[in-house]
Amino acid sequence: MQAIVAIIMGSDSDLAIMQETAKTLESFNIGYSIDVISAHRTPDIAAEFASNAHKKGIRVIIAAAGLAAHLAGAMAAHSPLPVIGVPIAGGTLGGIDAALSTLQMPPGVPVATVGINGAKNAALLAVQILATSNEHLLLKYIEYKKSEGQKVVEKSKKLQEIGYKGYLEKK
Amino acid sequence: MQAIVAIIMGSDSDLAIMQETAKTLESFNIGYSIDVISAHRTPDIAAEFASNAHKKGIRVIIAAAGLAAHLAGAMAAHSPLPVIGVPIAGGTLGGIDAALSTLQMPPGVPVATVGINGAKNAALLAVQILATSNEHLLLKYIEYKKSEGQKVVEKSKKLQEIGYKGYLEKK
Amino acid sequence: MQAIVAIIMGSDSDLAIMQETAKTLESFNIGYSIDVISAHRTPDIAAEFASNAHKKGIRVIIAAAGLAAHLAGAMAAHSPLPVIGVPIAGGTLGGIDAALSTLQMPPGVPVATVGINGAKNAALLAVQILATSNEHLLLKYIEYKKSEGQKVVEKSKKLQEIGYKGYLEKK
Amino acid sequence: MQAIVAIIMGSDSDLAIMQETAKTLESFNIGYSIDVISAHRTPDIAAEFASNAHKKGIRVIIAAAGLAAHLAGAMAAHSPLPVIGVPIAGGTLGGIDAALSTLQMPPGVPVATVGINGAKNAALLAVQILATSNEHLLLKYIEYKKSEGQKVVEKSKKLQEIGYKGYLEKK
Amino acid sequence: MQAIVAIIMGSDSDLAIMQETAKTLESFNIGYSIDVISAHRTPDIAAEFASNAHKKGIRVIIAAAGLAAHLAGAMAAHSPLPVIGVPIAGGTLGGIDAALSTLQMPPGVPVATVGINGAKNAALLAVQILATSNEHLLLKYIEYKKSEGQKVVEKSKKLQEIGYKGYLEKK
Amino acid sequence: MQAIVAIIMGSDSDLAIMQETAKTLESFNIGYSIDVISAHRTPDIAAEFASNAHKKGIRVIIAAAGLAAHLAGAMAAHSPLPVIGVPIAGGTLGGIDAALSTLQMPPGVPVATVGINGAKNAALLAVQILATSNEHLLLKYIEYKKSEGQKVVEKSKKLQEIGYKGYLEKK
Amino acid sequence: MQAIVAIIMGSDSDLAIMQETAKTLESFNIGYSIDVISAHRTPDIAAEFASNAHKKGIRVIIAAAGLAAHLAGAMAAHSPLPVIGVPIAGGTLGGIDAALSTLQMPPGVPVATVGINGAKNAALLAVQILATSNEHLLLKYIEYKKSEGQKVVEKSKKLQEIGYKGYLEKK
Amino acid sequence: MQAIVAIIMGSDSDLAIMQETAKTLESFNIGYSIDVISAHRTPDIAAEFASNAHKKGIRVIIAAAGLAAHLAGAMAAHSPLPVIGVPIAGGTLGGIDAALSTLQMPPGVPVATVGINGAKNAALLAVQILATSNEHLLLKYIEYKKSEGQKVVEKSKKLQEIGYKGYLEKK
Repeated sequence: MQAIVAIIMGSDSDLAIMQETAKTLESFNIGYSIDVISAHRTPDIAAEFASNAHKKGIRVIIAAAGLAAHLAGAMAAHSPLPVIGVPIAGGTLGGIDAALSTLQMPPGVPVATVGINGAKNAALLAVQILATSNEHLLLKYIEYKKSEGQKVVEKSKKLQEIGYKGYLEKK
Repeated sequence: MQAIVAIIMGSDSDLAIMQETAKTLESFNIGYSIDVISAHRTPDIAAEFASNAHKKGIRVIIAAAGLAAHLAGAMAAHSPLPVIGVPIAGGTLGGIDAALSTLQMPPGVPVATVGINGAKNAALLAVQILATSNEHLLLKYIEYKKSEGQKVVEKSKKLQEIGYKGYLEKK
Repeated sequence: MQAIVAIIMGSDSDLAIMQETAKTLESFNIGYSIDVISAHRTPDIAAEFASNAHKKGIRVIIAAAGLAAHLAGAMAAHSPLPVIGVPIAGGTLGGIDAALSTLQMPPGVPVATVGINGAKNAALLAVQILATSNEHLLLKYIEYKKSEGQKVVEKSKKLQEIGYKGYLEKK
Repeated sequence: MQAIVAIIMGSDSDLAIMQETAKTLESFNIGYSIDVISAHRTPDIAAEFASNAHKKGIRVIIAAAGLAAHLAGAMAAHSPLPVIGVPIAGGTLGGIDAALSTLQMPPGVPVATVGINGAKNAALLAVQILATSNEHLLLKYIEYKKSEGQKVVEKSKKLQEIGYKGYLEKK
Repeated sequence: MQAIVAIIMGSDSDLAIMQETAKTLESFNIGYSIDVISAHRTPDIAAEFASNAHKKGIRVIIAAAGLAAHLAGAMAAHSPLPVIGVPIAGGTLGGIDAALSTLQMPPGVPVATVGINGAKNAALLAVQILATSNEHLLLKYIEYKKSEGQKVVEKSKKLQEIGYKGYLEKK
Repeated sequence: MQAIVAIIMGSDSDLAIMQETAKTLESFNIGYSIDVISAHRTPDIAAEFASNAHKKGIRVIIAAAGLAAHLAGAMAAHSPLPVIGVPIAGGTLGGIDAALSTLQMPPGVPVATVGINGAKNAALLAVQILATSNEHLLLKYIEYKKSEGQKVVEKSKKLQEIGYKGYLEKK
Repeated sequence: MQAIVAIIMGSDSDLAIMQETAKTLESFNIGYSIDVISAHRTPDIAAEFASNAHKKGIRVIIAAAGLAAHLAGAMAAHSPLPVIGVPIAGGTLGGIDAALSTLQMPPGVPVATVGINGAKNAALLAVQILATSNEHLLLKYIEYKKSEGQKVVEKSKKLQEIGYKGYLEKK
Repeated sequence: MQAIVAIIMGSDSDLAIMQETAKTLESFNIGYSIDVISAHRTPDIAAEFASNAHKKGIRVIIAAAGLAAHLAGAMAAHSPLPVIGVPIAGGTLGGIDAALSTLQMPPGVPVATVGINGAKNAALLAVQILATSNEHLLLKYIEYKKSEGQKVVEKSKKLQEIGYKGYLEKK
C-alpha cells in the first residue's frame, strides 16, 4: 500500500510507544512508512526526508522524540506538509521537556503537537487531516468516534450492573 | 468568500491575539468564519457548532482559549474535523495551564496544539492541512516558507553591514 | 436509596481511585449514583446528564478525570449544581495537568476542586455541602471530624509508648 | 441582612481581588460578612472564627490567601462547613504556591479550591451550595447562567457584524 | 533526658523519613519528644502544643508534613520558637507542593525550611541553633562536619585505589 | 554595637530587598554586619568569612542570592553556625531557581531557607534563634507577634466599619 | 580580525540580549562573526553554516534562541565544534521552554548550555575553551576573574562605609 | 596516561551515572582523573582542587552533582578552566533542582551545563573542547559523529526489513 503518512521517531526506543500509531493507521487502512531518523544524529537524512516527503506522495508527517525533542521541528523546517509532533516521556522529567520543545515553535513554522506519549492521537489526527479531502474516510472516522463512545457507554452500564466492587474485582 | 476554516475563541479578550490568525488566513486567501463561543458559558452552542461544522463546508476548526482551556477539546469531542488548539496566556501562570489543558487530550480525541499564543501558527497549520488536497495552495505555502527564510537572510545581511550597534540603534 | 450525589469518572481506570468516594458516601449513608461518562468520547451523554441531574434529585456532582481533565468543567457548563472536580494522576506528569485543567475555570463557571487523587475529600465535601441544609448530617460530620482527630491522637500515644523504632517495626 | 456566607482574607492586600466575591454575593442578594483574619498572625481568631461560624448562621466560608496559603485549610480544620479556598497570586510565582497550598489538602479535610484569583467563582460556588436547599436561588442561578451565555452570544454577534478590526478598535 | 527539641509530624506515615531526625539528635545526645499532630485533623492540639512548647523547655520545633503542608506554619503561628519545616514527598508531585506550602510563609511568621525529605538536616539545623549558646555542642558540631568531610575523602581515595569499575562492583 | 548576625548578599542588587533584614534586626536592637560577598566571584572571601564568623562573635549568618543561589550553601559548607538562606527573585523564573538552589541541600549541610525575597522573615528567624538563649529577646519576640496580630485585627475592624468599597478607596 | 567564534541567533529580536556576547568577546580581543540564522526558517543555511564552520577557522559556536530553541541543537547536529547554547526568555514562560529545549540534548550530541539570557557567560565560556590552548588568553582570563572579584570587594567596602541607606540612595 | 580531564562528583552515589563519562573518555583515549569531592562537605578540597587543576595539566573539569548542585559552580568560582556541569537526578524532583542549580550561574562565572544525567555528553563536550586545538582529535570526533549516525541508519533499515512487530519482539 502506498505510504501517505510518514511515521518517524528519533530513537528506536520510542517504538514501544509509537507502535500504537502504526496500529491505528492500519485500522483505518492507511498506508504509512516508518523510519528511525534523528534530528541530531542524522540531520542530513532528516533534512532530505522532510524536503522530499511531499514529492513522494506523503501527505502528513508524524514525528516522535523525547528530551529536547527537535525532530518534529526539523521536519517542519524543511517540509510544507503538516507535521504532527509526539513528545515522548524519556528522561526524568515526565516528558514536559519534550512537550515544550515540540510545542513552542516560533511563528512561521507550526507543529501540530499532541499529548505526551500521544501515539494513538497522532494517528487519529493524521486521519482527520486526510479526511478533509476524503468523504469516505470522514465517514469512517465518524463511525470510529461513535464506537469509542459506545465503549464508554458499555463500561458504564457494566459498572452499574455489577457495582464498583464487582467491577474492580473483574479487572 | 465561503468559510472553510472556523476560528472560535472562548472570550472576546482573546481577539487581540487571534486577529493574527484571521490576517494570516486572509494572506492565503482562505475563507474563514470567526465566533466567540465558550465551552463553559455557551456549551450547547459549542456542541452544535462542532457537530455541524463539517456539514456547512468547514474543514478545519481553530479554537483558542486560556486558563482551563477546554474549547478545543470540546470541539474535538463533537466534530470529526481536525481541531487546532491555541492556548492563550491569560491568568497568572503564563499560559502553561492552557497549554496542558489543550494538549493533554485522552486517547481517541486529538487536538493539534500549537504554542502558547500561537495564533499565526494556527493559521499556517490550517493552510498546510488544506494544502494536503490543494496543489495550488501547497505551492503557495512553499513560496511563503521561502519568503520567510529570505526575510531572515536579509536581516542577517543588514546586521553584518551595519554591525550590531548600528542595528540596535535603527530598531 | 435515592441518589443525591452523582459520581462520574472519565474512564473506568479512574475507579481504583474513585471507589474511595463511594465508600465514604456509604459511610455517611448518602445515596449516590456512579457512571463512566467521558467529556470527550460521550459529550452528548455528559451534556444531557449534567443538564438533567438537578431535575432527578441529584444535588451534588463529583467528576473525576485525568490529563486534560475537562469532565468537571463540562458538568459545570451544563449544570447549576455544585460540581466537585477530582484531578486524577494519569499520564506522566503526576496529575499537575489534570489539576490545572480542573482548577483554572474561567469566571462564571466554578468547579470545586479537591487535591490530586482526592477521592475521599470529594465525598466529604459533598457531605459538607449537603449538611448545609441537614442538621443531622452536620452533627454526623462533626462527629466524623472528631473521630479522625482521635485516630491521630491514638497514633501519637502509641508512638510515645513504644518509641519510633517499635512503631516502625509494627507497621 | 443576616450573613450566611463568611468572606475572610489573609491580608487586606487581597481585597482588591476579593471585592468581586462581595459584589457577586450582593448581586444574588446573599448576606455575607467580610473579615481580615490571618492563619499565621491571628491563629486564635482564625480558630475561634472557624469553630463558631456554623453556630452563628454561617453556612459557607470563603477564604482567600496568597503564598503558603493556609487560611482555607485552617478554616477547614476547625469548621464542619464547606470551605471555599481562593488562591491569591501574591509573590513572584504567579500563585502556583498558593494554589498547591490550598488544593493539596490531606484526606479528611477538604477545601473546595477555585482558580487563582478566582474571587467571582468563589461567590458563585457559594451560591450553588446554598441553592442545593433553596429552589428559588437555584432558579436564580439558572437565570444567571443563561444571561452569562447570552452575553457571549451578543459579543459574537457584534464581532460578526463589525468584523474583528472594528471590534478591536471599539474596545 | 529532658526534651529540648520537639519533633512533630502530620501523619504517622512520615515516620519512615523522620526517624532520621530522631537518630541524628540522639547521636548528638540531645533530648527530644516525638508526636503525631495534624494541623488539619487535630488543630486544637497543634495550637496548644505550639503555644506551650517554650514553657515546657522546648527550644526548637521540627515539623514535618506532606501535600499542603501547613504543620510547620501552624507551629510558627502559635510559637515564638524557631520552627524547622520538613516538606515530605507524599502524593504525586515529588513534594514540590509541600516545599512551597512550608517555604512561602508571609512576612512576620518565618519557617526555617530544609529540603524535601530533609529529616537529617532538620536535626542538624536544630543542633546548630542550640549550639549558638552551647560552646560544647558547637565543638561537637565542628567535629561532626570534619568527620563527614573525612568520609568523602575516604570514598574518593577508595575510588582511586580500585577504579570506578571495582567501586561499582563492591557497592 | 557588636555584630552577632552577619547579613551577606551575592550582589549589591539584592540590597533593595535585603534592607528589610537590616531594618528588622535594628527594630530588635540586634547588632549586625552587612557585606557583599559572592560565592562565585569572591569564593575565597566567602570561605574565609564563613570559616571565621563564629570566632568573631557572629552567631547567625543570613545569606541572600538569586539564580543558582549558592551563597547560603557555601556559608553552610564552611561554618558551623546556623545559616539562613534568602532566595532572591532575580532572572526570569520568579526565583524558583534560587529557592531550589538554596533549599535542596544534601544531607549533612543544612540551610534554613525562608521564602522567596523573604528578607524580613530571615531577620525574624535570626531573632528566634538568638532568643533560644535570651529570655529578654524571647519576650520581645512574643510582644512583636502580638502586635503583628493586633495590626490585622485593626485592619479587619476598619474594613467592617467603612465597608470594602470605602476601604479600597482609602488605600 | 579573523573570526574564531561564531555568534548566531534565531531572531534579530535576540540581539538586545546577545550584544553582550559580542562586547565581552571584544573585551578579550577575540575575533567573532555574528549572524541571524533560524533553525526553522533557514534550516539549509543553518546546516551549511554548521557543517563548514570548522573549515573556516571557527573554533566555537554560540547559538541563542527562544521558545522551542532548536538552534544550538541544530548546530551541534552538524558541527564537530563545541556549541554553546543561550536560552532566550522569549514568550510567556520566562525561558524555561528554551532552557529545556537547549539543555536536554540526547546522548551523542552535547550542547554546552548557559543560563537563561546568559549572553555574557556564553562569551566567557568561549574564552575559557579557547584558553585551553592559549596560555596568554588563560592569564588574561585569570586577570578578568580577579578584577570581577575586586569589583565585588569594592562594592562591599562602599556599602560598609556609607551604610545600606546611603548605598541605596546613591544607586 | 596523563589526566587532562578531571571528573569529580559530589557523592559516590553519582558514580552509577558518571561511569559513562569515564568510558566515553577512554574510548577517545583521553587521560582523566576521577574523584569524589563535595562542595558542601569538603569545600576546602574543592577549592584547592579547582584552584590548582590548570597547574597540573587539567584542561577541562567535569563536575556532577544532584539536588542543590553547587559543585560545578564551586569549580567555576575557583578555576579558569571550562567547567562542564552534569545535573544528577537525585531526590524526588527528577533533577530539575540540580539542572537549575547548575545552569543559572550569575554573569561572570559560566558553567557549561549538559542535560540531566548527561554523563556521556559531558565527556563528548570535553572532547570537543580539547579538539579545538587538536586536529587529530577533531577528525576522530567527526568519525564518531558519523558512526553514531550510521547506527541510527542501521536501526532504521532493520526496522523496515522486519517491521515494527518483529523489531519489538527482537528487542
